Amino acid sequence: MSTFDVELKRVVDDSYEIETGYELSGKLISDLRKGLVGKIKKFAVITDSVVEELYARHIHKLLLDEGYSSELFVFPAGEKSKVRSTKEMIEDAMLEKEYRRDCCIIAVGGGVVTDLAGFIAGTFARGVPFINYATTLLAAADASVGGKTAVDTPRATNLIGLFNQPKKVYIDIATWKTLPKNQISSGLAETIKHACMADEEFFNYLEKNMDSILKLEKEACDHISYKNCEIKYKVVMKDEKESGLREILNLGHTVGRAIETCSDYRLLHGEAVSIGLVAQTHLSRKLGYMDDSQVVRVRELLKKAALPIEIPDYIDKDELLEKLYTDKKVRDSKLRFVVQYGIGSMVEFDKNDFGISVSKEEASEILDEI
Amino acid sequence: MSTFDVELKRVVDDSYEIETGYELSGKLISDLRKGLVGKIKKFAVITDSVVEELYARHIHKLLLDEGYSSELFVFPAGEKSKVRSTKEMIEDAMLEKEYRRDCCIIAVGGGVVTDLAGFIAGTFARGVPFINYATTLLAAADASVGGKTAVDTPRATNLIGLFNQPKKVYIDIATWKTLPKNQISSGLAETIKHACMADEEFFNYLEKNMDSILKLEKEACDHISYKNCEIKYKVVMKDEKESGLREILNLGHTVGRAIETCSDYRLLHGEAVSIGLVAQTHLSRKLGYMDDSQVVRVRELLKKAALPIEIPDYIDKDELLEKLYTDKKVRDSKLRFVVQYGIGSMVEFDKNDFGISVSKEEASEILDEI
Repeated sequence: MSTFDVELKRVVDDSYEIETGYELSGKLISDLRKGLVGKIKKFAVITDSVVEELYARHIHKLLLDEGYSSELFVFPAGEKSKVRSTKEMIEDAMLEKEYRRDCCIIAVGGGVVTDLAGFIAGTFARGVPFINYATTLLAAADASVGGKTAVDTPRATNLIGLFNQPKKVYIDIATWKTLPKNQISSGLAETIKHACMADEEFFNYLEKNMDSILKLEKEACDHISYKNCEIKYKVVMKDEKESGLREILNLGHTVGRAIETCSDYRLLHGEAVSIGLVAQTHLSRKLGYMDDSQVVRVRELLKKAALPIEIPDYIDKDELLEKLYTDKKVRDSKLRFVVQYGIGSMVEFDKNDFGISVSKEEASEILDEI
Repeated sequence: MSTFDVELKRVVDDSYEIETGYELSGKLISDLRKGLVGKIKKFAVITDSVVEELYARHIHKLLLDEGYSSELFVFPAGEKSKVRSTKEMIEDAMLEKEYRRDCCIIAVGGGVVTDLAGFIAGTFARGVPFINYATTLLAAADASVGGKTAVDTPRATNLIGLFNQPKKVYIDIATWKTLPKNQISSGLAETIKHACMADEEFFNYLEKNMDSILKLEKEACDHISYKNCEIKYKVVMKDEKESGLREILNLGHTVGRAIETCSDYRLLHGEAVSIGLVAQTHLSRKLGYMDDSQVVRVRELLKKAALPIEIPDYIDKDELLEKLYTDKKVRDSKLRFVVQYGIGSMVEFDKNDFGISVSKEEASEILDEI
C-alpha cells in the first residue's frame, strides 16, 4: 500500500478582451497578424446557415487573402441545432479536413453559434483556442462574458458543455442592422435584465434612450454593449463557477425558460424572459421588495422595447405550472426564484441557499396576475 | 468603439492523490465520508459490462449502504465503446435519473472506462468531480496520471476529449488477479516503456523481477505501480498540455498504434506497443543512440513479459507502411519518431521540433528487420 501525490497547482490566465465597434473583421485579421493566437495559421470558421452569407464567408475570405488556411463549417440556423449531433457533425468535418491540435476556431454568429463553437473548441484535440465574432445583440448581451458553452439534450437545456474562455470577443454593432426587429428586442430583454438587477442609472438611461437604441443609433448601441459586458463581468468575476451569486443572472429566467418551452419556441428567448421579468416583479412586490411604481417602470420599459409582457393566449397555464414544478430547481415541492430589490439591485441570500422558495399555489396566483 | 478587459487570472489547484493497495473500496467510502468530494451525496458509478459484476456493483452497494444515492451506468466492454454515442447514452441516462450539477462520477474499470467517464465528468453540467477506481494494470500504468480523457471517432483515435483531473485515483492491485494473462502483459508494455525512457534502475528491477510480477506478488506489484506513477508524473508535470516534452510518452506508439489498427484490434494496445518499442530500438541503433546489447535487453525484457516482439504474419507490411505515413505526424512526407537513448533516457530535441524525421524508405527497412 502506497500513496503518490500529484501536485497540480498553477496560475491560469484566461483573460481576454471584448472589442465593440463597427465592421470589425479587418480588425480581427490585424489582431491575428499581431499574434492573437500565436503562430496558428489554420482556422475553422463555424457559423450558421443565415450568418454564412451575411458575414462569415467574408471573414473566411479575408483569412484566405491573408495567406491563412481556412474552411467554413455551416450548420442550419436555429436553437434546434444546438445539440450533440451538430457538434459531432462539425467535429467529423474538421477531422476530415485534417484539422488537428494546431488550429483555432472562429465562431461567427449569435448565441447558438458561440455556445456550440466554444464547446467544440473545448473538446477538439482536447482543446483549441477560439474567438467569438458576435453578430447579434443577444450574443453581445449574454454570450460574450462568462465562458459558458453548452448544447441542449432532449431532457435538458444547456446541461452538456463546459466553461471555456475565448481568446477575444468582437461585438460588431454594424451587423445588428440585418437582425429582424424581434431579435433586437429579444437581445434588449437581457439588457433590461442587467439594468434591473445591478444598475439603476443604466435603467434610467434605457428609459430615456430606448427610441435611439431601437433605431440602432451609434452612441446608444456602444453604451448598452459596454454596460452589458460590465454588469455581467462583475457578477461572473465574483463567481466563475456559478456556485451561488451567478444565480442572479437567472433573473426572469425561471418563468422565462418554462414559457419558452411551452411556446414550443414560438417565442424567442428574450421575449420569454421579458414575461419572466414581469413575473418576478410581481413576486418581489408580493414579498415587499418592490413597490407598485417600480413594477410599472419595469413593465413599461419592456413594452417600450417592443417586448411581450403578458403570457400569450396559446400557452396553457396549467401546463406552464406543471413545467415550472418539474424544474431542476424544485426542492420540497417549492421552486427557487431570484427577485430584484427595487430597481438596480437584488434581494440577497446566503450563498448556499440562493433564492426564494415559492409554492405551486403562490406561483399560480402570480401567473394569474400577469 | 470601445474595449472591455475581462481579467481571469487565478490559481487553480487540481492536485490529487493516487492510492495503491488491495481491495480499496472500503477506503473509497471512508474517504467520501471524510469529505473527498465535499458534501456531494449523489454518485454515478460508470463501468463496463465485464467490470460491473466483478467490482462496480460492489462499490455501488457500499455507496447505498453508506446512505448515499447511487446508480450504475454500464456500457459494453471494449475499445469500440470509447465513442461519442456511448458518452451520449450515459449522459441521457444520467439526466433521466435526475443527475444534475451536484453529483460525482466514479469510474470503475480499465482505461476505456476511465477515459470515457473522465470526459463525461468534464462536460456533464459543465463539469462535475470524478474519481478513478482502476482495475487493470494498463489503467494503473497509463490512465492514472495526466488527466487525458477522450473518445475515438471513425477518423481519429483520442481526438475528441479534454484534460480533466480526477479527485483521487485508486489502484486496486487485488483486481489484477481477474485479468486475463494477455491483459497483464499489455499493461507491462507501458511499464517497460516507462523504464526504457526514464529509469535505468527500474529497467534493471524489471529484468530481475519479471517472474514475481507475472505471479502478481505483492511487493513487486506495489513497486511497479508506484514507479509508473512517478515516471509519468515527472514527464507530465513538465508539460501539462503536451506542447512537446510529453511526446516522449509516445515512445513505441507511432508504430504501435499503426500495428494496433492494422491488426483490427486482434492485438491489445500493449501488445502492439511492444512491437513498436522494438521498432524504435532498431531506429535508435541505426542512428547510433543504442548499441546491440541494449537493443537485445529491451527485446528480451518484452519477451519475458510474454509480449510479442515481431509483427504478426497476418499484418500486411505495405498496408502498415501506408497507415504510418497517413499519420497526423507526417510532415514533408517524413514521419516523426521519438527514440530512447541507451537504457533509461531519451534522445533530446528542441521543444518546437520534437522527434526524428524518418522517410518511408527508412521505415520500411526497419520494419523488415523486426
